[in-house]
Amino acid sequence: MSDRAAIGVDVGGTRTRAGIVDQTGQVLMRTERPTETTAGTKGIIAVVEDLLARDADMDVTVGCVGIGAAGFIDEARGAVTFSPNLVYDDPSIRDAVEARSGLPVVVDNDANVAAWGERTFGSVRGTSDLALITLGTGIGSGFVINGRLLRGYSGAAAELGHMVIDPDGPECGCGLKGCLEQFASGQAIERMGREAVEQDPRSSILAFAGTADAITAEHVARAAREYDETARTVLRRAGRSLGIGLSNVANIFDPEVIILAGGVLGAGEAYLGAARDRFVAMTEAQKRRPMRLDVTSLGKDMGIIGAAALALHETTT
Amino acid sequence: MSDRAAIGVDVGGTRTRAGIVDQTGQVLMRTERPTETTAGTKGIIAVVEDLLARDADMDVTVGCVGIGAAGFIDEARGAVTFSPNLVYDDPSIRDAVEARSGLPVVVDNDANVAAWGERTFGSVRGTSDLALITLGTGIGSGFVINGRLLRGYSGAAAELGHMVIDPDGPECGCGLKGCLEQFASGQAIERMGREAVEQDPRSSILAFAGTADAITAEHVARAAREYDETARTVLRRAGRSLGIGLSNVANIFDPEVIILAGGVLGAGEAYLGAARDRFVAMTEAQKRRPMRLDVTSLGKDMGIIGAAALALHETTT
Repeated sequence: MSDRAAIGVDVGGTRTRAGIVDQTGQVLMRTERPTETTAGTKGIIAVVEDLLARDADMDVTVGCVGIGAAGFIDEARGAVTFSPNLVYDDPSIRDAVEARSGLPVVVDNDANVAAWGERTFGSVRGTSDLALITLGTGIGSGFVINGRLLRGYSGAAAELGHMVIDPDGPECGCGLKGCLEQFASGQAIERMGREAVEQDPRSSILAFAGTADAITAEHVARAAREYDETARTVLRRAGRSLGIGLSNVANIFDPEVIILAGGVLGAGEAYLGAARDRFVAMTEAQKRRPMRLDVTSLGKDMGIIGAAALALHETTT
Repeated sequence: MSDRAAIGVDVGGTRTRAGIVDQTGQVLMRTERPTETTAGTKGIIAVVEDLLARDADMDVTVGCVGIGAAGFIDEARGAVTFSPNLVYDDPSIRDAVEARSGLPVVVDNDANVAAWGERTFGSVRGTSDLALITLGTGIGSGFVINGRLLRGYSGAAAELGHMVIDPDGPECGCGLKGCLEQFASGQAIERMGREAVEQDPRSSILAFAGTADAITAEHVARAAREYDETARTVLRRAGRSLGIGLSNVANIFDPEVIILAGGVLGAGEAYLGAARDRFVAMTEAQKRRPMRLDVTSLGKDMGIIGAAALALHETTT
């Protein structure tokens, strides 16, 4: 008899990635395609059908589908109610995918499914209280509390990136000023990198990028790896701001562990070390218990594994 | 046959108040005594025994005891693990009170029990997602998420007052800088009142207090009620900071409702109106749904009713 498995779909800004995931969290088969920014639902259906067409050779039976996507999600309806960069041609993703696949479908926020994946298959599996923070162009978050995901009354919770940590800070795309995202994300590093080369045009940030307008967080990280002090200063500033965010998470949620994920971790120790140092210093100043701070153990498949884990959980209980 | 009721105990910094509460949230009988700051457990036992000695005349049977106290609580052990101003002569409050009363006992943080009281008997009873913020000398908070209290892995969650909202802000007694409590609490209003009269010695804040050192939040509130512009400016600043805290609560928790409680609400509309205005402006800037913001409907009995409600809930399920 074959084991029950799930398809996990990770709807990213540029790529929609999917995989068949077994009950131990292994990704048995993968597929991906460019995200259709004006027909998000169609793109999801395409990867699901692709995997279903190929699962016949496998020792598992796909019994459900999990989908993680950016934005506010009404998980009761399986619909994305607000998405920054993506149009869903069929707003009830769940109904559309269920109709085409014949399988039960679960839709949730990308950081939520990642948090659930960590809880199910990560290094702290089984914990009841976990915080996951995704550090990319923006900052996302997912929280497991009392063993359940924090979704909020209308699916708009866990927007840690838009927690204000300095009311006089830079304007954020969300409409507020001084959000954590404006201090500690990839876009913040990019902005601070541009500002820094105005003061220090000899920084290798500028050499790598060519022009100030072309500077990305990646250029800042590359310059920092080559000991460019201006770049390292930018990353340390961003890291220290992240440390404030982590302290706020400790004071608000007191999770067993905080897990970090996302591309900005590639900026390396100047960033992550500064975050950890500030977080530990703040925790010690408050005489709080030391809190475990980890980097995701699920790697690039975090979104696929998390979406599958949530589907396996929510369609069997 | 008599109905099941609970004793609720509210351990405050100066008074320990208790009452017998029935299943509809009515307080049938009350008692109180000064809090014994070096023998907290003994003081709790005294009020419980006082009420039990008098309950014979009543139509209800006291079946359990709930206790709300400041600090970090290990609710599994029924013990206060950290308390700012109070020494518990017997650290396992639950075991001590159970031994003396013969009743099952539940111990939790004072803001947690207040949140549970709101959920059970307040104006939004039955909601699954609620935030309660207590505005006193300090700022406390309790959160109901997915129908359960947020306690955290070690009972140290829901410390919203120590969420940093400005890293360059004043030092906080907790060891951090720029905590919400340093901008929006009674002690913040007191500090800002003292600072304000240095600039404006003709403010009636000073006239009411006599000397700058004697200024309390109450003097600032009184001056504001008499249209002292310096006092009103202090309260508006504090209120606007509270608005930032409310926006952070919306972004992190997305509760159905945020309920405010505590003595600082007596500062009136200069404070509360500024908080509401800033919160609404931030919510609108983000295009978030309008969020309900209420003041507690349980009044001064909030702590007693909440502790009793939690005991009735946790000892019957």
